[in-house]
Amino acid sequence: MKEFFKVTNLKQVIKYADDFSPVETEEIDLHETFERILAVDIISDVNLPDFIRSTRDGYAVRGQSTFGASEGSPAYLTIKGSVTMGARPTFSIGPGEAAKISTGGMLPDGADSVVMIEHTEEIDDITIEAYRSVAPGQYVIEVGEDMKKGEIILSCGQKLRPQETGLLAAFGKERVKVYKKPVIGIISTGDEIVEINETPGPGQIRNINTYTLSGMVQKAGGIPVSFGIVQDNFDDLFDKCSQAIAKSDMALISGGSSVGARDFTIEVLSSLPDSKILAHGVSISPGKPTILAMAGNKPLWGLPGHVVSAMIVFEVVVRPFIEKIAGLSGQHKRKEKIPALLSRNLSSAQGRIDYVRVRLRRIEKHGLLWAEPILGKAGLINTMVKADGIIEIGINTEGLDKGSKVSVISL
Amino acid sequence: MKEFFKVTNLKQVIKYADDFSPVETEEIDLHETFERILAVDIISDVNLPDFIRSTRDGYAVRGQSTFGASEGSPAYLTIKGSVTMGARPTFSIGPGEAAKISTGGMLPDGADSVVMIEHTEEIDDITIEAYRSVAPGQYVIEVGEDMKKGEIILSCGQKLRPQETGLLAAFGKERVKVYKKPVIGIISTGDEIVEINETPGPGQIRNINTYTLSGMVQKAGGIPVSFGIVQDNFDDLFDKCSQAIAKSDMALISGGSSVGARDFTIEVLSSLPDSKILAHGVSISPGKPTILAMAGNKPLWGLPGHVVSAMIVFEVVVRPFIEKIAGLSGQHKRKEKIPALLSRNLSSAQGRIDYVRVRLRRIEKHGLLWAEPILGKAGLINTMVKADGIIEIGINTEGLDKGSKVSVISL
Repeated sequence: MKEFFKVTNLKQVIKYADDFSPVETEEIDLHETFERILAVDIISDVNLPDFIRSTRDGYAVRGQSTFGASEGSPAYLTIKGSVTMGARPTFSIGPGEAAKISTGGMLPDGADSVVMIEHTEEIDDITIEAYRSVAPGQYVIEVGEDMKKGEIILSCGQKLRPQETGLLAAFGKERVKVYKKPVIGIISTGDEIVEINETPGPGQIRNINTYTLSGMVQKAGGIPVSFGIVQDNFDDLFDKCSQAIAKSDMALISGGSSVGARDFTIEVLSSLPDSKILAHGVSISPGKPTILAMAGNKPLWGLPGHVVSAMIVFEVVVRPFIEKIAGLSGQHKRKEKIPALLSRNLSSAQGRIDYVRVRLRRIEKHGLLWAEPILGKAGLINTMVKADGIIEIGINTEGLDKGSKVSVISL
Repeated sequence: MKEFFKVTNLKQVIKYADDFSPVETEEIDLHETFERILAVDIISDVNLPDFIRSTRDGYAVRGQSTFGASEGSPAYLTIKGSVTMGARPTFSIGPGEAAKISTGGMLPDGADSVVMIEHTEEIDDITIEAYRSVAPGQYVIEVGEDMKKGEIILSCGQKLRPQETGLLAAFGKERVKVYKKPVIGIISTGDEIVEINETPGPGQIRNINTYTLSGMVQKAGGIPVSFGIVQDNFDDLFDKCSQAIAKSDMALISGGSSVGARDFTIEVLSSLPDSKILAHGVSISPGKPTILAMAGNKPLWGLPGHVVSAMIVFEVVVRPFIEKIAGLSGQHKRKEKIPALLSRNLSSAQGRIDYVRVRLRRIEKHGLLWAEPILGKAGLINTMVKADGIIEIGINTEGLDKGSKVSVISL
């Protein structure tokens, strides 16, 4: 019998992500920040807004002037003036007075609320009736109500969604310090693999993994760089790996991570300058023959050659490392695993975590989702095309019953 | 009292998306296809794989030769040769024979399955013992098992995830016909709005909506183009709108969609050449004063000026139009609304759909999520920064009880 690798627990493998540091930072224009990761804390330097703003079209008043007003017994208010948008009103409002104002306008001194225009009627050029009473503070945004001066409004390691970019706009952050996108080198190995523009001969197939992994790198916020296909020999793989390490922040080698006669990856990874094998074999299925190494301060991966295995290992094991070196902080990691109910019984082996491809289907009039397992060999890409995601079956679980609650990692 | 718009039902407004056609197509390189939308059906021109492939390191055999084999009573097999990766074996396998093979190798004629190397032992140079029996078809991928020749493997209107790009690689599609990304023009209106590089004076605020909407356009698969800030006057807005229509596939105008004195948008949209107002007022909250118009064959939107309202209207109403003109087909729309349980009672007005911002929190040891409402004025961007998404409260619902099942649209 051949010698086999000693598998490492998944959690332990992911824990190694702590050993790597984020990439460098850069300053970019605000309009380029979509889904980038903030590299500094942002502190508000002013109150937002820094004046009392109307949230309705209507009349700025002292709320007190309207107390008790109704359709039958309106409050009569004297129009003191009209608020010009984007300017400080040149007059103030006293009891029984009102100023015409539009949504977004600055309240005059003395006014504390707005009567909606729908609840008023102009009697003459200088008088309105108000049919509703408003409380002080109603239909306005107070000074600092959105963000107070001196608050941390966004924190280092946060991914910038449209709303965070909007908040940066509100504070005039034209240029924003973010982490660079990590560059991820991808090498595909195997004598049977040909480029996609070639017609495979007997026994050959085209290079799929470079393309699936490139897409997953982009989804994880990295920049994929392909180093092409390497034949199964030590020197070529050594050279390519050296190139990839020099030009990337992390490298992925797909294929050749097992213990077969052709599996040079472990040998190459062990021979690279300043390298160390952190794990060879992870307690997951598919994906057991995964290798994690470090060369200098960069992580290197030997991924399984089967397309499904490589994608699952990427999502479950590699992605946390990309997020770490991309600067994403733990508190800002995505939460969007999708809760669903398993549509059938599933068995599973103990002692490892099983990942099962699933398709999601909405349960009519119920609001919940079925997760329907898609079974099939790890070499079949069509199973991933049919799938919406994967579910995890825990290491100490022998299987799951139909109807069990599962969390779907969307892919 | 002023005259108010007659609101249109949300479903009816979204139905207008059918009146618009997808943008033009373009051919791009396979490595650029991430999240692009396919503009043709793709049919497989070969079987995938087109030879029987091993999925394990081991020995290719006729399954029959191993029937009944066990640790105590192994099958003795004669090694006929070794399969070279990426090449057709030059020999065939008969009963009682085996060929050394690696994962991904082509089975010799006569072999139908693979005995894993872990279940064998070499006795001498030409003989192995096999300790397990394998069924015909075991540990191999059959011809066409992944995709059969002549099948539609991907269909027009499908969004390309990493796995779909991988499938295209498998079939050698170097160049792929996709829909162009629709260009979405964005105009921000209001005399009180200043550029982000300016210091707002009294009564002024910086332009937030252009930035939040740009991000949302990118998320929806479009290319945002800002046409800057327009003052509240008819001629300027008319000119900007004309420019935006000429240079975009759709235009968004934020602010000025209500019926206040400053609200020129409806007037401008009505005056554009070949234009038609499809809806002024939608039965949703926030977002009621939304305008949908068409000029020629392009949709134009008047969005509310409040930042939260504009984002919600974008997600709920505008996004389906971007998806339509981007070529995304109905069957391929995302399904990932996240089921959750409402964390508290919520009241709601009948006769309109309410959208409530929520934060998601995992319920310990339960697998489900709480949706925690974030209440606050529609002018407060911090509420969107705190939120993970929004939930919908139906038009005929007076409110929802704590623990109700809700579907979260993530933002």
